[in-house]
Amino acid sequence: MFSEALQTMVEETRGGAGAVLMGYDGIAIDQFFKPVEDMDLQLVAVEYANILKEIKKTADILESGRMEEVTIKTDRFLVLIRILNDEYFVALTLERDGNFGKARYLLMRESPALKAALD
Amino acid sequence: MFSEALQTMVEETRGGAGAVLMGYDGIAIDQFFKPVEDMDLQLVAVEYANILKEIKKTADILESGRMEEVTIKTDRFLVLIRILNDEYFVALTLERDGNFGKARYLLMRESPALKAALD
Repeated sequence: MFSEALQTMVEETRGGAGAVLMGYDGIAIDQFFKPVEDMDLQLVAVEYANILKEIKKTADILESGRMEEVTIKTDRFLVLIRILNDEYFVALTLERDGNFGKARYLLMRESPALKAALD
Repeated sequence: MFSEALQTMVEETRGGAGAVLMGYDGIAIDQFFKPVEDMDLQLVAVEYANILKEIKKTADILESGRMEEVTIKTDRFLVLIRILNDEYFVALTLERDGNFGKARYLLMRESPALKAALD
């Protein structure tokens, strides 16, 4: 069930490289990755889990609101992250020239089903 | 010179709450903040400097490319961050229902001038 939604997100987004459903502890429930040259996308996701944990802690301390979405753009990749609940998030990675708007839309569209399946 | 560009970004964006030009060490060169209830936006910026440092380190280690832009959406705020160089970034904070696209455009438009003034 999870991997199907993840694969849909990657394949329906131009430039889609991979998607992962992961806990803040860096352990993936499910994932779908296309092979990307010189890049271990799973390792990337694990590292970003650590960063999200920091952001979450910061948002909590500062009472700046519950974290919902984080995007990181580098000169190689776009990473879109959507928070599902207090334990899990879903991250979609695109090539830099991928379709950001479509990726964001698909993440929003698929998140409620992922969330429901987690509960 | 800096504060003028920062003020422009905040005032020309619907929902604009504050902008800051800051080093990764959390020390601001310049800033412009509107008063926001229950929220120390400068403290928020300092905390986010720490997070950026983590993201930068991660991107370097993973060779996932040079970090350019980070956005964080909570249920209260939108924070858009644009990396200027290895030492400084500019962060623009909006109310949650602010104009994200305009904010992103203004950050892109003003960044080269800020960058040039820093060098």
